Amino acid sequence: MLAVTVAQGSMKGISILGSTGSIGTSTISVTQSLAHAFRVVALSGGRNVAKLASQVEAVLPAVVSSGNEAVSRELQSLLRERGYAMARTRFVCGEDGHCAVACHPGADIVVSAITGAAGLLPTYRALEAGKQVAIANKEPLVMAGALMMGVARERGIEILPVDSEHNAIHQCLRGGRRSEVRRLILTASGGPFRETPKEKFAGVTVSEALKHPTWRMGRKITIDSATLMNKGLEVIEASCLFGVSADEIDIAVHPQSIVHSMVEFVDGSVIAQLGVTDMRHAIQYALTYPERWISPLPQLEIQKLSKLEFLEPDREKFRCLDLAYRALRAGGTAPAVLNAANEVVVESFLNDGLRFDEIPEVIRGVLDAHVPGEAACLEAILKADGWARGEARSLLHNGSRRLTSRS
Amino acid sequence: MLAVTVAQGSMKGISILGSTGSIGTSTISVTQSLAHAFRVVALSGGRNVAKLASQVEAVLPAVVSSGNEAVSRELQSLLRERGYAMARTRFVCGEDGHCAVACHPGADIVVSAITGAAGLLPTYRALEAGKQVAIANKEPLVMAGALMMGVARERGIEILPVDSEHNAIHQCLRGGRRSEVRRLILTASGGPFRETPKEKFAGVTVSEALKHPTWRMGRKITIDSATLMNKGLEVIEASCLFGVSADEIDIAVHPQSIVHSMVEFVDGSVIAQLGVTDMRHAIQYALTYPERWISPLPQLEIQKLSKLEFLEPDREKFRCLDLAYRALRAGGTAPAVLNAANEVVVESFLNDGLRFDEIPEVIRGVLDAHVPGEAACLEAILKADGWARGEARSLLHNGSRRLTSRS
Repeated sequence: MLAVTVAQGSMKGISILGSTGSIGTSTISVTQSLAHAFRVVALSGGRNVAKLASQVEAVLPAVVSSGNEAVSRELQSLLRERGYAMARTRFVCGEDGHCAVACHPGADIVVSAITGAAGLLPTYRALEAGKQVAIANKEPLVMAGALMMGVARERGIEILPVDSEHNAIHQCLRGGRRSEVRRLILTASGGPFRETPKEKFAGVTVSEALKHPTWRMGRKITIDSATLMNKGLEVIEASCLFGVSADEIDIAVHPQSIVHSMVEFVDGSVIAQLGVTDMRHAIQYALTYPERWISPLPQLEIQKLSKLEFLEPDREKFRCLDLAYRALRAGGTAPAVLNAANEVVVESFLNDGLRFDEIPEVIRGVLDAHVPGEAACLEAILKADGWARGEARSLLHNGSRRLTSRS
Repeated sequence: MLAVTVAQGSMKGISILGSTGSIGTSTISVTQSLAHAFRVVALSGGRNVAKLASQVEAVLPAVVSSGNEAVSRELQSLLRERGYAMARTRFVCGEDGHCAVACHPGADIVVSAITGAAGLLPTYRALEAGKQVAIANKEPLVMAGALMMGVARERGIEILPVDSEHNAIHQCLRGGRRSEVRRLILTASGGPFRETPKEKFAGVTVSEALKHPTWRMGRKITIDSATLMNKGLEVIEASCLFGVSADEIDIAVHPQSIVHSMVEFVDGSVIAQLGVTDMRHAIQYALTYPERWISPLPQLEIQKLSKLEFLEPDREKFRCLDLAYRALRAGGTAPAVLNAANEVVVESFLNDGLRFDEIPEVIRGVLDAHVPGEAACLEAILKADGWARGEARSLLHNGSRRLTSRS
């Protein structure tokens, strides 16, 4: 029962897409604690220049990409000021830049953690380039699951999930064969409004919705957790990753977030994965898989666990759940449309005063107007994505008189 | 996600050692529900003639063994009266008879479920004969773990645990490599006296001790559950089965008996197995392993689980636990001595008025007087077992004046 040691010369290179977000930051932390085995070779961030600069100084990447040219210039000037040896690093930006990070020849593993649809193309390019992909952003799989899984299969790559639920499912599935699975049970914390009566949803404020009870995450995903759309997107993601139908994926609300998910096998046995709520566990699992390495992270103290509860989600209250199941069953471009509409609507809730209870209404409107097509190529998917954003904005605009009169 | 079907001609023969007990009965029930794949070819029971006769009529075994010649004659006369086709079955008895059942040429799998030390020799013979052994009685492994595991290794057999905790551990271990295990966490219901103050232990009656909160089992094991000696014996069993030291096995009291046990890996991830409290699940797992088959048994309803609790066991109150760890650490013949002393003492509690709180005292006395020797052969182990029984009886006898004056 000993540590696994790494042979000299087997150092693995890591590219991080979305390095300044919470997953990106945690990934850097994990690679630093396993510095004998992993080296970050390329980073891509968005607009957080200060954080990106610190990360560049810390990991000395060969390539760094940022949101756009202006940000990249700002980053370079900041680093130059601080005396960074500029020749060490190539500075790129935008979608091409992110793709260069994804395909960097020194990268063995690409950690895909760009929030939203922007992660799709770079992640796809990473798979095409034959990289091992550890996926933390759900959008690429929600939008283009069949396509991504197809490329991965062709290249002989297993996409490893970093999302705590899917990472847990991946671990639980080791307990049997795929043909022996009866259902996946994704756990959900239930978000901050688990016990809030539906009647109060109209008055939910942005700051209330941003208070997640157990996980600390970015703003977009925190809102998705409050509406349970996050769980809905995870259902779609799980369907792609593990090749199971909507009927074979259940949700159990588990407010303590200790059981990260479960698998029920055909013989009635349920295998669950438990751990502390720290994403670095799942990241390390994905980086070291198929091995498990000793972790310096805090451990779960089983005998001190408070009571663990499991409940049915309230689908009347959290309507985004059924919308996600509906999009998954419709298939084709419907999940991409669901995802795009949700991004626009969450943005509107965060910045433009859309009411919390209107989030599912607008998304439903977009789904109602959509005729799903085949999601056979990225172009078709991105076209559906663009259409859905336009449709969502138009619905928001049409409803804006009512919104304005309220604000 | 379909049922696994069994090819024609791959029917497996099962011998059951201890067929009239709760595990034996459940095993027959499982083979009946999977009658396309399993056939019981040999049975061994003890003194329950009526039950054994019904089982013989139900499964038509080639061989049936019973406790002794008188029982065997009674069984035969009962079956003859009932018009059983006597020529179908060979009637044997005693230890030789049990060994004949264990080694029956038609048996592919031997389910070892004779309570107490009596299961040791037949189980050992089954392994020697190259049978796949599904083990439900812990005594063979507690008494002669190294010996049993040695024979199994030589014959290329994996001993499959049917005890719910060890069966759960077996399932959880599939989540990683053996070298990646940090510790096994055996769950314990805590028994009927989890919340009883230690001061009341002196007055515990037999009928109180026989009321197990979650599992229905035989009398001996139910008392062992009330003292937590059952958990102590399971720690020793787990150490043998999975090759881990005493320091790598922990106990979590879990009153709901839903999580059957857990494994913590070196990366901090904990894998747990959950299920309803029905031994037929574990029996089926052991019979169909490495496959999982659809089970007709009641399923666990995750979303309706009452709160799951996990607590430290109270080692001051349940002193048998530390005695078991002490015997495991001492090694050699010490676990056999612990087990033998416990059998004598539990018998005395059930039938001769020994006080509940005196159970660990007498066992400790036997361990104190024992100088552990090597457990290199069955003879050495059985000699230690015999010595421990004598020593326990002598301690009980010496204390009998006090016991008599109390009753």
